[in-house]
Amino acid sequence: MDLNSDLGEGFGQWTLGDDDALLDLVTSANVACGFHASDPSIMRRVCARASERGVAIGAQVGYRDLAGFGRRFIDMEPDALTADVIYQIGALEGFARVAGSRVRYVKPHGALYNAIVHHEDQAAAVVRAVVDYDRALPVLGLPGSAWLRLAGEAGLTVVHEAFADRAYTPEGTLVSRRLPGAVLHDPAEIARRCVAMAAGKPIRDVEGGELTLRPGSICVHGDTSGAVEIARRVRETLTAAGVALAPFAP
Amino acid sequence: MDLNSDLGEGFGQWTLGDDDALLDLVTSANVACGFHASDPSIMRRVCARASERGVAIGAQVGYRDLAGFGRRFIDMEPDALTADVIYQIGALEGFARVAGSRVRYVKPHGALYNAIVHHEDQAAAVVRAVVDYDRALPVLGLPGSAWLRLAGEAGLTVVHEAFADRAYTPEGTLVSRRLPGAVLHDPAEIARRCVAMAAGKPIRDVEGGELTLRPGSICVHGDTSGAVEIARRVRETLTAAGVALAPFAP
Amino acid sequence: MDLNSDLGEGFGQWTLGDDDALLDLVTSANVACGFHASDPSIMRRVCARASERGVAIGAQVGYRDLAGFGRRFIDMEPDALTADVIYQIGALEGFARVAGSRVRYVKPHGALYNAIVHHEDQAAAVVRAVVDYDRALPVLGLPGSAWLRLAGEAGLTVVHEAFADRAYTPEGTLVSRRLPGAVLHDPAEIARRCVAMAAGKPIRDVEGGELTLRPGSICVHGDTSGAVEIARRVRETLTAAGVALAPFAP
Amino acid sequence: MDLNSDLGEGFGQWTLGDDDALLDLVTSANVACGFHASDPSIMRRVCARASERGVAIGAQVGYRDLAGFGRRFIDMEPDALTADVIYQIGALEGFARVAGSRVRYVKPHGALYNAIVHHEDQAAAVVRAVVDYDRALPVLGLPGSAWLRLAGEAGLTVVHEAFADRAYTPEGTLVSRRLPGAVLHDPAEIARRCVAMAAGKPIRDVEGGELTLRPGSICVHGDTSGAVEIARRVRETLTAAGVALAPFAP
Repeated sequence: MDLNSDLGEGFGQWTLGDDDALLDLVTSANVACGFHASDPSIMRRVCARASERGVAIGAQVGYRDLAGFGRRFIDMEPDALTADVIYQIGALEGFARVAGSRVRYVKPHGALYNAIVHHEDQAAAVVRAVVDYDRALPVLGLPGSAWLRLAGEAGLTVVHEAFADRAYTPEGTLVSRRLPGAVLHDPAEIARRCVAMAAGKPIRDVEGGELTLRPGSICVHGDTSGAVEIARRVRETLTAAGVALAPFAP
Repeated sequence: MDLNSDLGEGFGQWTLGDDDALLDLVTSANVACGFHASDPSIMRRVCARASERGVAIGAQVGYRDLAGFGRRFIDMEPDALTADVIYQIGALEGFARVAGSRVRYVKPHGALYNAIVHHEDQAAAVVRAVVDYDRALPVLGLPGSAWLRLAGEAGLTVVHEAFADRAYTPEGTLVSRRLPGAVLHDPAEIARRCVAMAAGKPIRDVEGGELTLRPGSICVHGDTSGAVEIARRVRETLTAAGVALAPFAP
Repeated sequence: MDLNSDLGEGFGQWTLGDDDALLDLVTSANVACGFHASDPSIMRRVCARASERGVAIGAQVGYRDLAGFGRRFIDMEPDALTADVIYQIGALEGFARVAGSRVRYVKPHGALYNAIVHHEDQAAAVVRAVVDYDRALPVLGLPGSAWLRLAGEAGLTVVHEAFADRAYTPEGTLVSRRLPGAVLHDPAEIARRCVAMAAGKPIRDVEGGELTLRPGSICVHGDTSGAVEIARRVRETLTAAGVALAPFAP
Repeated sequence: MDLNSDLGEGFGQWTLGDDDALLDLVTSANVACGFHASDPSIMRRVCARASERGVAIGAQVGYRDLAGFGRRFIDMEPDALTADVIYQIGALEGFARVAGSRVRYVKPHGALYNAIVHHEDQAAAVVRAVVDYDRALPVLGLPGSAWLRLAGEAGLTVVHEAFADRAYTPEGTLVSRRLPGAVLHDPAEIARRCVAMAAGKPIRDVEGGELTLRPGSICVHGDTSGAVEIARRVRETLTAAGVALAPFAP
């Protein structure tokens, strides 16, 4: 099983999350590329450390919106979005290459991640960026999203992710963050769910029924100290359960 | 002989220079990479057209200063400068690759170009970026600069450039723009000088003596309509004189 | 009658439109405030010249999006939008004050202008910015918009604007730019319409019927040389028809 | 005696320092204005809280360099620097006004603070900004700097500041941060020095001699939790010693 997390999300003097701690826990690093977060010095450092640890480097691409941390939908022209995504992948590739590695996958961030669940034009624009840049790059995202559907239709390798700390509906979609119980907080419970998912066994959905997710990667958060602790527990529990951890993108 | 020019220097809604006209005249395009000018949509377009015409794509790297167009010295830490340069080369490489080409060389822009004539630490930082990114990439710059000296010492391929429309001192350095006569305006004279340089023959220095420059590339400007006319005259005159025009970086 | 136009829309090295020509033609200058266009040096210069000519200075506030020139909707939190608008008005006020003047009104730009025709939350956020900053400031906008309705309800002075070069539906709304005939190009016709509007007489709507607009200001464009010519014709024709031109905001 | 501290130095999602803690300790808040740090939402919040607590709001103006946090010298044209400073003061004034207050003083930040100790042209440019904006605004800075000398010559009210946690040479200049002992860490010692300075009594210089500083304000840092503790100790010790704390700019 693969564990992915968002990394390199500081900017200049400002830090966010504990990149070093996370790099010892995850197998895939979604590295911000400077449009919604990160800067060249941070990207270089994260790529170097990821490469040393055998952590796969993925391009965490987002809207050009440092002030909004990429969390605000921007109604961009698709062609401009395609270009913005290629730019970000290319910039990260430079550091991956300097670190003796490569960009291994693409995962959109924040409002872009959410937009391309349904926004066909923007989803197609991000797919086109990956196709144009390197059609061998896998893409990571939400099952059922326009993004993964269009990526699959375009011949890209599609990887489903599940969220360690999020409740799911019986249909397998995420419970909205606005609803109670949407986010799980108990490290033991979160870790148990990850073990179930890794074993192809069902978890409890938000209504108490059984739901079987078969993710290619599990997303853990790292932007709070509590989140790092959860990630650590997930990793330890998976390992103790005999689940081998490795990047989905070799 | 190679003719290089700065291209892709618009930003968003704003344009600067006539990229399309220049791309029919030069053999090497110094493409701005988004830090002092340019944006992903412009970079994509310029790379596509350059590639179609067989024009070599070079990374015109600069300080992160859109408001100042990269024309203001920034006293950066060398490590941060190295990272900024790698980021810019990588971003441009993405578009060059999408266009079926590659980044063929690196040429710093504006205040960075001027700074690394003398500023050893920043010159070394830019050299390190190229060495780390790809030591096969040639670098283009001013003869006698710290930048080319350190690049040569680091084993990089060093290419000297001359300026079509600038007066030279007897020592072969540029006459300061603050002095009268520093910039030439007569297209015929400029074109004649380029033919002489291409043939390895002397030109007149600012004091009337003879000066032999042996540039690997001649820089022409394109940011005014007059400049495009001069570039056209240079190209036509060189061609008429039997000088073959081709990128220095194959 | 008042003529307003967008001004100060360059950025750094880049220019857009002919500010000096427009400042001799209009009575109200919608000065960009650095978020979607303009920079402090441009703002200072435009304010100084506007003040010299008795042209009223208005804050042309927009989304923080230089790369998109404020033409892309951004799904911002209302509180953040309120703060962004206050910031822009305040920054412009600094230059208006240095020029011996004041900010006289507020007019949103581009995608923000369009969004707050219908987007109640963002419209309310911009209204709140003006109320918080100075409830004596008039606001300029499209009749029928949520923006002007909410501004009126909040007790602000509301000024309707008409567009010199745009076709109108029988209901008095703008014909979409995507439809043929949406934009008028004949300077004589445009000028005639302005005279009619200034006299409270009807113009032809897009279906040939009569439509009476009673704008407090007419917007003319200035971002092309053709546009400047149209603005000049509008001014001359209005003056020749005996229409006194003066800022709506004294 | 006045205690000043840098505040509002986050950006978007990123935070820096503990603004709320500091606002309970200092009497003057140097509020970043969005060029090297801060954003409109942060500025609004800090101004509102400062105003509630009777803390004077000062404009902490800096170079336009979010990526470098304003800590990198930029070799700007003086006119552009003047405009950048006016823009920042004006923007902050908007929020001060909304909070029922005013900008009370100007204090440059980071590399600009350091540059204008010696850089006559930039010092004059910042002075000109204050003179043009409002010559009643006091300026805060380092005794002996070109900045304060030129401000005084221009008729501005000049306020000297001392640093609570920095060692001084016998000549009254700061010991370079590169030298051992430049920064003091013992809260008790720092607080004692502040009491001495407030009483007009000598402190020990770095060589053990006596040095009498008569600052109009003492700068305390707040960007680490340790720094907040030191600020708290300074305040408590001054209060216990009978020193009344109040803004220097009423």
